[in-house]
Amino acid sequence: MRRKVYVGSLRVPFASVELAEDNPPVLLYDTSGPSTFDSLPRRDWIAQRAGGPVTQLALARQGVITKEMEFVATREGVEPELVRHEIAAGRAVLPANVNHPELEPMIIGKAFLVKVNANIGTSAVTSDVATEVEKLTWATRWGADTVMDLSTGPHIHATREAIVRNSAVPIGTVPIYQALEKCNGDPIKLSWELYRDTIIEQAEQGVDYMTVHAGVLLPHIPLTTDRVTGIVSRGGSIMAAWCLAHHEENFLYTNFAELCALFAKYDITFSLGDGLRPGSIADANDEAQLAELRTLGELTKIAWEHDVQVMIEGPGHVPMHKIKENVDLQQQWCHEAPFYTLGPLTTDIAPAYDHITSAIGAAMIAMYGTAMLCYVTPKEHLGLPNREDVKAGVIAYKIAAHAADLAKGHPGAQAWDDALSKARFEFRWEDQFNLSLDPVTAREYHDETLPAPAAKTA
Amino acid sequence: MRRKVYVGSLRVPFASVELAEDNPPVLLYDTSGPSTFDSLPRRDWIAQRAGGPVTQLALARQGVITKEMEFVATREGVEPELVRHEIAAGRAVLPANVNHPELEPMIIGKAFLVKVNANIGTSAVTSDVATEVEKLTWATRWGADTVMDLSTGPHIHATREAIVRNSAVPIGTVPIYQALEKCNGDPIKLSWELYRDTIIEQAEQGVDYMTVHAGVLLPHIPLTTDRVTGIVSRGGSIMAAWCLAHHEENFLYTNFAELCALFAKYDITFSLGDGLRPGSIADANDEAQLAELRTLGELTKIAWEHDVQVMIEGPGHVPMHKIKENVDLQQQWCHEAPFYTLGPLTTDIAPAYDHITSAIGAAMIAMYGTAMLCYVTPKEHLGLPNREDVKAGVIAYKIAAHAADLAKGHPGAQAWDDALSKARFEFRWEDQFNLSLDPVTAREYHDETLPAPAAKTA
Repeated sequence: MRRKVYVGSLRVPFASVELAEDNPPVLLYDTSGPSTFDSLPRRDWIAQRAGGPVTQLALARQGVITKEMEFVATREGVEPELVRHEIAAGRAVLPANVNHPELEPMIIGKAFLVKVNANIGTSAVTSDVATEVEKLTWATRWGADTVMDLSTGPHIHATREAIVRNSAVPIGTVPIYQALEKCNGDPIKLSWELYRDTIIEQAEQGVDYMTVHAGVLLPHIPLTTDRVTGIVSRGGSIMAAWCLAHHEENFLYTNFAELCALFAKYDITFSLGDGLRPGSIADANDEAQLAELRTLGELTKIAWEHDVQVMIEGPGHVPMHKIKENVDLQQQWCHEAPFYTLGPLTTDIAPAYDHITSAIGAAMIAMYGTAMLCYVTPKEHLGLPNREDVKAGVIAYKIAAHAADLAKGHPGAQAWDDALSKARFEFRWEDQFNLSLDPVTAREYHDETLPAPAAKTA
Repeated sequence: MRRKVYVGSLRVPFASVELAEDNPPVLLYDTSGPSTFDSLPRRDWIAQRAGGPVTQLALARQGVITKEMEFVATREGVEPELVRHEIAAGRAVLPANVNHPELEPMIIGKAFLVKVNANIGTSAVTSDVATEVEKLTWATRWGADTVMDLSTGPHIHATREAIVRNSAVPIGTVPIYQALEKCNGDPIKLSWELYRDTIIEQAEQGVDYMTVHAGVLLPHIPLTTDRVTGIVSRGGSIMAAWCLAHHEENFLYTNFAELCALFAKYDITFSLGDGLRPGSIADANDEAQLAELRTLGELTKIAWEHDVQVMIEGPGHVPMHKIKENVDLQQQWCHEAPFYTLGPLTTDIAPAYDHITSAIGAAMIAMYGTAMLCYVTPKEHLGLPNREDVKAGVIAYKIAAHAADLAKGHPGAQAWDDALSKARFEFRWEDQFNLSLDPVTAREYHDETLPAPAAKTA
């Protein structure tokens, strides 16, 4: 049997898998969130900080172990001091907007369990608010640790409001998408003022982390001209178009300090975007990508001066033998700020299976020290993910993340595998199903061949 | 457009993908086989060897470049001398029974493209001959380079006959399975004589390579007692049961020289089985596994003395950080004989998704030098694979194999990715679909969101 339990005075959620005979229950990390959001203890934790600095980084540097850090320590099975220490050093982030009291705090850093992000969102032609909230719930049910709302189209504000209010996981956004909607899709009409207002709008709603493409600089753009696939990041293309049209430096870069001051007010975490990430195997680890990464390292220092938390986004498409270099350079140039990568896809030849091409790269890059993996669904490059695609993407990435936890020797990670393997060897089928990442499908596949209940115990 | 073409006087098959505008066509390796088996040129190649040694290894050592080697050289885009040289050194095998004239020769070795094997076969309760032949055709349509017929139950001989006669790819078997059927499933009744007769029966039918669990020695068996999952290989369990019941050394080991003489007569390739492979993360790289691997190294030398080709089977379940050691020890102890691994699965927690848990391990182990990957389907641990499972397994493993070809810098491998990425960047949707590993599904996913033909060119 699998049921939800709450541990300690902060009521940290786990899934408890109870096993047959004298096998002890296994507690699994649980992202599924509460069924209702009536009780919001985090409201009080935040209220007590009024008047002082509010970012987890500022507090960690002061030596304070916040309730959020305590919660995370129980969740990860580590000492609270380790959590504080890693945040203070900038090696981990705890994305937690002061306007998101629904949050069950979590941490992103290489000393902790590898995390998975799922992207959802409406487009101009498909989806409505209710469908997106359902995708959020569905994604976290299967293990998404954070969710990015990449909505475009007419209902961005309302969609985001519904998502944040229903989310126990941190919500990320790419504010330039909404800013662009406000310019009717013309990137040349963007401005710092309009962008800033968009940030404030989203910050007030409680967005926990934001992708900011502040590293796409004018001098980097010509480095992309000989690429097979040019600039494939939407945010990167938007900012490059603006820079080239105005012959001016990226306004996100030139106004970065003001942006930091805003983020500090709400404790929004930077996810410094890789607008020049490679979109093909041919373009991996090229000069455009690396030039931007160096700039992200500079910006990390500035954010930290403002007590703002930072993570760094990474590629994209990278063949296996070039994956480690990505982590090594990111860790060195960005002063060990957590790395947050999209895949990477290890080959370009398998559209419709890019959850698999990229799970290979994701597992490897996480083993080398990436802290969070942005999922890729089977629809990547082909269309918008539906409910089944979201599940396929999350599951593939939970596999990659856990494989990396094992390879890193994360304390306690292997106990899950051992419990399942013991159940398998002893033909305790129900225990094996309940310990699975996806008990529903495991049971269904078994029953296709051997449906009798007796076949599950002998 | 994608169509079959034949190159050179030996008519080596390729899939030619013809592209829009002035983009040159891309030739892809093609395992799908001819639609009919009327013309069998290999009959003549074999006939000309009557009276002399017939194994590709013997001929390679004599400096002969056989027609099979020439065929393979064109298929791989390398010089025939490289093919001969790698076979002569034992670093590659060209499995080609003299009784399998339907074969389109292929090579397995780390200097060549990474290959994928698909397992099929009837069981006592499911499947019939026609269904298995259809699975063979289906598996090779999606890219299986070899197929193993693991049939059990009453129709083993007839099933195998139908499979070999319809197969352009090498067919492998595990003869101990049929030998056991002849003893009504009682391993204790097995004998060398009964096994030898089974080998001859299968050799006459044209089986190209056979898994032989000759490395499961009496002194190795106690090493498995403290494992989480004991002995999980079926062949390993059978031989261990026999050894323990008789208190005698494994008859496959004690009669190995005679087995070699038989294999030499037909040019059957050894696939030295890993009967003690780990069945869980906990048991990876343990002393039982490694003791058997050392024995397989001894046996390799003996086979080579008989001019018999050899590959070595490998695990199983291995966490990412222990994968490289498997290849390094296998290459060292088995004198660089080609490695042929099952996965490995990089975690135990995802039954129903073990094609993905293992594609991660497969890609990595191939990058480190494994020559052939045995696929794992979503039904692994849960039931027998159906048609869709076979396809899912083959596709996941073609991804792993190609990702490894890229990482190894295999000449020409990246041209495929580059052609597809260029098509993607230029919105040539039809070209992108046709270059995909699975054009059918890529097209279908695209059309779910954007079905209009115009959406495929702009």
